[in-house]
Order: sequence, then structure tokens, then C-alpha cells
Amino acid sequence: MIIVMGLPGAGKSSVLAGAEGTGYAFLNYGTLMFGIAKEKFGISHRDEMRKLPVEKQKQVQEAVSLRLSSERGKVVLDTHCSIKTSRGYLPGLPFSLLEKLHVDAVVLLTATPEEIMGRRESDATRARDPETIDSIREHDLMNKALLAAYAAHRGCPARIIYNHDGKLEDAVRQLRGMLE
Amino acid sequence: MIIVMGLPGAGKSSVLAGAEGTGYAFLNYGTLMFGIAKEKFGISHRDEMRKLPVEKQKQVQEAVSLRLSSERGKVVLDTHCSIKTSRGYLPGLPFSLLEKLHVDAVVLLTATPEEIMGRRESDATRARDPETIDSIREHDLMNKALLAAYAAHRGCPARIIYNHDGKLEDAVRQLRGMLE
Amino acid sequence: MIIVMGLPGAGKSSVLAGAEGTGYAFLNYGTLMFGIAKEKFGISHRDEMRKLPVEKQKQVQEAVSLRLSSERGKVVLDTHCSIKTSRGYLPGLPFSLLEKLHVDAVVLLTATPEEIMGRRESDATRARDPETIDSIREHDLMNKALLAAYAAHRGCPARIIYNHDGKLEDAVRQLRGMLE
Repeated sequence: MIIVMGLPGAGKSSVLAGAEGTGYAFLNYGTLMFGIAKEKFGISHRDEMRKLPVEKQKQVQEAVSLRLSSERGKVVLDTHCSIKTSRGYLPGLPFSLLEKLHVDAVVLLTATPEEIMGRRESDATRARDPETIDSIREHDLMNKALLAAYAAHRGCPARIIYNHDGKLEDAVRQLRGMLE
Repeated sequence: MIIVMGLPGAGKSSVLAGAEGTGYAFLNYGTLMFGIAKEKFGISHRDEMRKLPVEKQKQVQEAVSLRLSSERGKVVLDTHCSIKTSRGYLPGLPFSLLEKLHVDAVVLLTATPEEIMGRRESDATRARDPETIDSIREHDLMNKALLAAYAAHRGCPARIIYNHDGKLEDAVRQLRGMLE
Repeated sequence: MIIVMGLPGAGKSSVLAGAEGTGYAFLNYGTLMFGIAKEKFGISHRDEMRKLPVEKQKQVQEAVSLRLSSERGKVVLDTHCSIKTSRGYLPGLPFSLLEKLHVDAVVLLTATPEEIMGRRESDATRARDPETIDSIREHDLMNKALLAAYAAHRGCPARIIYNHDGKLEDAVRQLRGMLE
């Protein structure tokens, strides 16, 4: 399993789309969560997940980690390195989840803070809290530090791939190189 | 439990003072250590703690972590993210302690290296080794990396709050926001 | 055990040579690996280690960690903080190894990215992939984040020692200070 992470505006979807056809199945952590929450607790929209009682959210997470731990094939797991919440950066791969997975590498997709800022501003489809260059730089730093902690925990390599403006092919090529 | 950390000059005491009256009990790790060392080994001054044999220091630490692990109420634990010693940055929350606690969030209070330098220079009450801007920047970076490791270990959010010069109210407001 | 790490061009060999005569035995992780692989699997050159089947490589690593975990004397372990591979930065001290060792401190030897670049360019004896200042800066950042994770895991101090151009004596003095 290769875990691919990136903050909003890093262009993760585009890079992942370019890495299809490499024999890997692509799993999205959020989609797995939603699928299980729908089945178990009958919710019909992703936003309802956050409104589930903490106990039920934990049951959903348990079910997802059970599903992922049984995965033996060639899988790319698409998730967050950390989510920016009102209480701080919430790690996407806490050790309690990580220790159940067979991880070959963790990958962080990123770009310069200026590029990320520019992409977020031009993406009118999502309502996001406005952020400063400094706050994006802080999030990127914390993601790199988390990436190191994940790699130290699993003993697997940690790769940082830059998806610079106009250089999508470079980023795709680097990710495909890891899947071959 | 919310754990609040910060390097000397970050203004932790002032920010914590501003967060009183939120229904949280405030515990200081160093004060807990001293209380137990006083009771168990009859020392009368904080400086004597460092002179205790390593075996007794460990007993004190064990007693503190037992005390903290039994804590079920709303508690703010005030401690160091890391202490700068002659052998390097000593983590304030080693995993062996962290795994015994019920942690809801870890918070790092900080400021720019220039602000921290300025505050330390004007604080004549404490004798501190003179530091350079570069060494303060290094300590701050290591604190952020440690914060990420603590959060990855516990699966809890990691928050960085800047206490900039003349902006104490902003820092207090952010911390209070986490306690509500 | 004191663990000393550093990226290529940090001048680790020179600094370690300057720290001899302090009563510590110096062990090199790579040399231990090679010795065991030679004995167990009859290889005759270091490069053959990478060509061993993964299963045999794991047996070699197991044997090295067993050897190191039984170490009770004053030892400096010379290893990598991370190795830059085609799949990313591979941690030199995964938690699975670290938890078997008696670690007193972890030390990262480094220099500015410009100094490291300059030293690598003038070192004609080794064929290295050309790197940019930015990629060296990234490797150095990941090493510092890994150092923090190692320290948080062991609860031991993490020290960063700069080996600046023309200041080898300073770096040696700092390392010797940790061995006394």
C-alpha cells in the first residue's frame, strides 16, 4: 500500500488521475468512511458524518481500518496528511491506524504556499476559510513533520512530490515511478 | 485534557492566566514533580530535583504520570514541548508518558524568534544563557516537529498559537476557543 | 548509547574521528550489516547487500538489532538519519529498531545546504546524483523532523550540531562535550 496525502490546493486529484493504469486500486479514505456510515447508520450526505455521536464516528473509523488492514493487493490510499480543524491539525494517519496497515511508502503532494494560495482563490466551487501565505506555510510544515513521524513509525520511505504550476506531468511521472 | 506548551519567552503564563474561568483545572507539570519529590524525598527547593539520583527522578516521574493518567476532569496541563539541555532538546511528552494520558489536543504557544529574543533580553529576573536568533529558530522548529509527533502518536489535533507582541488578547481568545 | 547521524556532506567521519579517545566504542551500522551479511550469506561487497532478497535483508537487520540491543557499554552508533532512495527518505531508526536500543541521546550533524552542496561537488571520489540546494534543504528538514520523532519515541534528548566550513573544531568540541 502506498499512501498519498496532500493539502487542499496541492492538486492531489489531478496527480492521482494521471497515475491510473498502473495496476493499483485507488481507495479514498473519506469515501470508505462515508460508505460505511451510510450502511451502518443510514446517513445520506458526507456532511452528516461530522454530526454523528463520537461513539458512532469511532465505530466507522474502526470499520475502515479493519477494511484497510485486510487489504493485500496493490493499493493507493488517498487521504489527508492532516485536516485543519478549529482545534488544530488533526493527523490523517494516527499511529493507532498506521500500525494496522501494510505501508510501502508515504507520499506528500505539495506546492509552494503561493501556488496553493493562488489555486484556492481561483477555485470558486468550494467555500473555504480565507488563509494567509503564512498559515499555508505552517500547515505545509506540520504536514512534513507528520510525514516524518509516520515514516519513522512504519520504517517506510517518505516522499515529497512537488506539483508546481504548469508541471503536472512532472508530478505524475514521479508518482508513477513509485508505482512501478 | 488539553496540553499547552511553549518555549521560554513565548508568554505562556500570561496566555494561560487569560484563559482562567473556563471551567478547566490548570496543572503545571513542574509543580506536580516538585510536590511529589518534596513529599517522597524531602527536598525543599526545585533545583534539588535535578540533583536526585536518576533512579529517584524516575520514581517521581512515574508518580506524576500516574497522577495525570487518573485525571478525568477538564484539565489544562502546562508543560514544556522540549527543554533545552546540554545534551539537546529533551521532549516534554515522551511517548511513554503520552500513552498514559487522555489527550484532546496539544497546543504550542510561540512567537517569532525576534519577539522571543526581545522578551528574554528584557526579562532581567531570570539568568538565561544568551541565545542567537538562529538557535531560537532551531528550538522552535524542533518544538513544531515534536508537536507533530505527539499528535500522530495520540491521534489528536495539534494547534500552534502565536502570541505576538501587543496581541496577547488574540492568543488568549484562540486558547479560550479551544476550551469551550 | 549515543546515536550520531548526518547526511552525506555533513562531515560525519571527520567529526567522529575528532571524538575518539573518549572511552566510547564506535560502531557503524552499515559495517555491522555488511559483516553479518558476509557471514550469513557469503556476500563479498557492500553493494551486494541491496541485491539480497528482502527476506534475507530482514534477517540481516534483525541480527544487527539483536547485536545492538545487547550492547551495554559506552557506544557511539554511527548511522543515517534517513537515506534518500528512489521511493523517498528511508528512516535510519524506525521505531521497531529504536525500541530495542538503550539510547541516551540522538545527534544530527549538519551544515547549511550551501556548505553541503559545495562539499559534495568537490568530493570527486563518490558518484552522487546531482542535487539542488532546495532538495538538500528538504532532506535536512526531514532529518530534523525524524530526529524529533526518534527523541519523542525514546524520551531522550535530540541535539543538532552544525559542522560549518572551517569550524570542525567547534563541531568536535560539541560532540566530545556529549561524551564526557
